[in-house]
Amino acid sequence: MDQESETKMLGDLSVKLARHYKGKIVTVPNVPIRDLSDFSIWYTPGIAQVSREVSSNPDESFELTGRWNTVAILTDGTRVLGLGNIGPEGGMPVMEGKALLFSYLGGVNAIPVPIRVHTKEEFIAVGKALEPAFGGINLEDIESPKCFYILEELQRSLNIPVWHDDELGTAAIILAALINALKVTGRRKEDTRITFIGSGAANIATVYLLEAAGFRLGNVVIADSKGILEPERDDIDKLMLNNPWKYKLAMSTNADRRKGPEDNAFPGSDVVISASRSDPSLLKERWIRSMEKDPIVFALANPLPEIWPEKAREYGAKVVATGRGDFPNQVNNSLVFPAVFRGVLDSRSRGVNYNIMIKASEEIAAFVEEPTPEKIVPTMEETDLYPRVASAVAFASVEEKLARHTDSREGFYRHASEIINLNRMRYEKLLESGIIRRIENYER
Amino acid sequence: MDQESETKMLGDLSVKLARHYKGKIVTVPNVPIRDLSDFSIWYTPGIAQVSREVSSNPDESFELTGRWNTVAILTDGTRVLGLGNIGPEGGMPVMEGKALLFSYLGGVNAIPVPIRVHTKEEFIAVGKALEPAFGGINLEDIESPKCFYILEELQRSLNIPVWHDDELGTAAIILAALINALKVTGRRKEDTRITFIGSGAANIATVYLLEAAGFRLGNVVIADSKGILEPERDDIDKLMLNNPWKYKLAMSTNADRRKGPEDNAFPGSDVVISASRSDPSLLKERWIRSMEKDPIVFALANPLPEIWPEKAREYGAKVVATGRGDFPNQVNNSLVFPAVFRGVLDSRSRGVNYNIMIKASEEIAAFVEEPTPEKIVPTMEETDLYPRVASAVAFASVEEKLARHTDSREGFYRHASEIINLNRMRYEKLLESGIIRRIENYER
Repeated sequence: MDQESETKMLGDLSVKLARHYKGKIVTVPNVPIRDLSDFSIWYTPGIAQVSREVSSNPDESFELTGRWNTVAILTDGTRVLGLGNIGPEGGMPVMEGKALLFSYLGGVNAIPVPIRVHTKEEFIAVGKALEPAFGGINLEDIESPKCFYILEELQRSLNIPVWHDDELGTAAIILAALINALKVTGRRKEDTRITFIGSGAANIATVYLLEAAGFRLGNVVIADSKGILEPERDDIDKLMLNNPWKYKLAMSTNADRRKGPEDNAFPGSDVVISASRSDPSLLKERWIRSMEKDPIVFALANPLPEIWPEKAREYGAKVVATGRGDFPNQVNNSLVFPAVFRGVLDSRSRGVNYNIMIKASEEIAAFVEEPTPEKIVPTMEETDLYPRVASAVAFASVEEKLARHTDSREGFYRHASEIINLNRMRYEKLLESGIIRRIENYER
Repeated sequence: MDQESETKMLGDLSVKLARHYKGKIVTVPNVPIRDLSDFSIWYTPGIAQVSREVSSNPDESFELTGRWNTVAILTDGTRVLGLGNIGPEGGMPVMEGKALLFSYLGGVNAIPVPIRVHTKEEFIAVGKALEPAFGGINLEDIESPKCFYILEELQRSLNIPVWHDDELGTAAIILAALINALKVTGRRKEDTRITFIGSGAANIATVYLLEAAGFRLGNVVIADSKGILEPERDDIDKLMLNNPWKYKLAMSTNADRRKGPEDNAFPGSDVVISASRSDPSLLKERWIRSMEKDPIVFALANPLPEIWPEKAREYGAKVVATGRGDFPNQVNNSLVFPAVFRGVLDSRSRGVNYNIMIKASEEIAAFVEEPTPEKIVPTMEETDLYPRVASAVAFASVEEKLARHTDSREGFYRHASEIINLNRMRYEKLLESGIIRRIENYER
C-alpha cells in the first residue's frame, strides 16, 4: 500500500473507532467506597478539614489531592498537527490521544483542555487561572510565534512546570539523538556545524537548547523559505518586532555570515536538522553531497520525511533519523514528555529549565548502550527508559532547587516505576475484564 | 460522641486518608492498546482525520471524543462549604469529592478545576474559554452575589449546560421535597405561604425556581440578618446596585408588605425554608408555633440544622427536613446533580433551564411512591433514581429544543442505566483486584 492510501486507511479507522469508543480516557475513583456513608470522609463534612489544611499551606494540595499527578494539555487549536488552525474542538481528538500516551507511558493523569481564546494575552490569562488545578501544564499545537510568548510568560509566572511539547519535547529528543549521532561519527559538539531547515517553533527551540548544551551558535546556520537567516535579510525588521526569538538567532548564529538560498547553508556542514514540509524531495542530493564527510541527516517532517532514508544514505549520510516508526532512529517526542512530566511531578517541581532538559536528553542518549548508525535513540517499547529518564529529571529539579519534594536518584527511580506499573496494572485489569471493549472488525 | 468530636474525628480521618490516597479520582485509558503501533490510530497519523471531521462540524466533538461525558467542576474557592474564601487550592479537595460523587452516582467524568481569578469578569472569561473541552460546567462554591452574575452570563453565552450547584442543585431538591411535603399535608402550591430564613444564593435561587414551578411570589417572605426583605428596607438602594437578583425579590415577594424582625415573617406561614447559620437555636419555638397548622420546616444548614427535628415536631411541625443523612428527609444536592448532568449529557443539551429543572424535581418527588411525613425524598441508596431523573431531564431538554441528540424517554433511561452500570463495574473491578488499596486501620 502506498503512503497516501495507508494514511487514509488509518484516518478512516481512527474516525470509526473514535465514534465507537467516544473518548480515549475516562476518570475512575481512586479510593474505596464501602457504602455511601463513606462520603462523609471523601466529601462533607470530613473534607472541610482537608480544605483547611490546604488553605493554610497551598503546597499541601500536592500531597492531599491528585494535583501532584495531574497535568493539563492546553491548546487553542491554532496549529494542530499539519492541519493548521482548526479550532479548539478540532484539536480535542489530538489532545485526547496525547492524554492516552501520558497515561500509558508515564502514569500521568492528563486532561485535554482545548480552549477558545483569541489573543496570546487571553491564552496566558487562562493558563495562569488554571495553575491551582494542575501539577504541570503541557502546551500543545499553538501557532508560532504566539507559542514563544505564551511559554515564556507562563514559565515565568507560574510555580508549576510549563512545557510546550512542540518546542521543548522536540528539542530534547533532537538533542538526545544528536549526542549519539556525534558519538557514532566521532564528532565533538563544540566543533559541530549544524544546518537547520525550517524556522518553526521546533527548530528555534532546538537551537536554544543546543546552545545551552554547549553547541556553538556561530556554527549554526538556519534556512527557511526566505533563505538563510542572517542580520541583513529583507524581513529582519519585521522579525525584530514579531518574533524576537527568531530575530535573536538571526543575530547570533551563522558566524561566517552566509546569505542567500538554502544551497549556501550546506557546504562544510556536519549535520542537517530539517523540520519543514512533508515532502521527500525537499532535501536535495547536491545539498547532502556538499556536506562534510559522514554527515548526519535528521529529516523530521511527518508523515513524510524531507528525504527518504535510503536516498540520504545513497548521497553519503552516515546517520539518518526521521519522525517515523517504520525506519530506524525515530526522533519521537513520546520518548520525552511522559518521562519529563513523571519526573517533575514526582519532585513536585516548581518549573522546568534547560539544565533539567539536558539531563533528560543525556539520559535518553545513555540508555542506548552501544549507539550505531542504525540505533541512536531508544524506542517506545524500551519501557525502562521512562522511569530512568523520570528519575534523572526529578533529581535534576532537586539540583536546580526547583523541587518541593526531595529524594535520591534511586528513590525517584523506584517511585516512578511504581506509579507507571500501578497505572499499567489498572489498565490491564480493565482490559482483561472486558470493560474496555474489544471490537470484532478491528484491523489495521 | 457529640457533634463536635464526631466532626473533628471525621476531619482527621479525611486528612489522613487524603494523604494516603493522594487523589480521589484518576484517569485511565478507555480504548484497547494491543501494542504501541495502535497509537497510529489513537494518535498520529490517524487522528488527523478525526480532527478534520470535528473541525468541519464542531458538534462532532460530542460524538468523536469524550466531551459528551465530561464536565468541569469550576470554582474560585471564594465560598467553600462553611469555610468562606479559602482560595482555589483550598477548594480542590471539595471539588475532588464532588468529582467522586459525579463518577459514582452519575457515571460522569468530572474534572476538578479550581481557578485563580480576581473578578467575576475574569471568572467568566475562563468559563467561556473552557467551553470546547467540556460537555457541561458545574459551578461550585462561589461567593454571592458574584455567583449570580457568573451563572447568568455563562448560561447566556455558552452552548453547553452551566449549573451552579449551590443555587440550582439546592433549589431543585428543595422543590422536590416541597412537592411531597405539600402532598403529605394536603396543600396546593398556589396557596402555600413560605417563609425563607437567609438570603444567600441557595434561597434566592429557590424562590426563582418556585415561581417558575407555579408558587406565588406574593406568598413568599424572605428574612435575613437585616430583617424582612421589603421595598423600604434600609439597604434597598445598595441591593439594587450590588445584587439585582435579591433586589428584584424585595420588590416582588411579600405581597402584604411585612416589615421588621424575623418574628413578623412567621404568623400564617405554611412552610419555613431556612438556609442560614449552623446553629440549632436559630429557629425559635414561638416562630414555629405562630405558623399555620401542620407547618413544614426545612432546616438546611450544615453540619447542624437551625432547629433539631425533634424540637420542631414538639413545636407542631408536621414535616421536618434537614441537610443531614442521620435524620429522615435529607434534602441533599447529591440526589440531583449526578442525574441532571447524566441527562443533559445524554441529550448533548445546549443548556439547562427552569422547565428542565422542574421536570427533574417532579421526577424525584414521584420516585417516592407513598410520601409520608418521614419520607418526602429518596435517599442516595435508591440508585434507580439516577437513571430515572436523568431520562426525565434528557427528554425535557428534547422538549425544550436544547438537545443535540434525540431519543425516547425509555431510550434515555436505558442509556443512562448502561453508562452508570458500566462505570460502576469499572470501579468494582479495580476494587476487587486490589488496585484501589484497602487500608488496615480504616475506621469511622
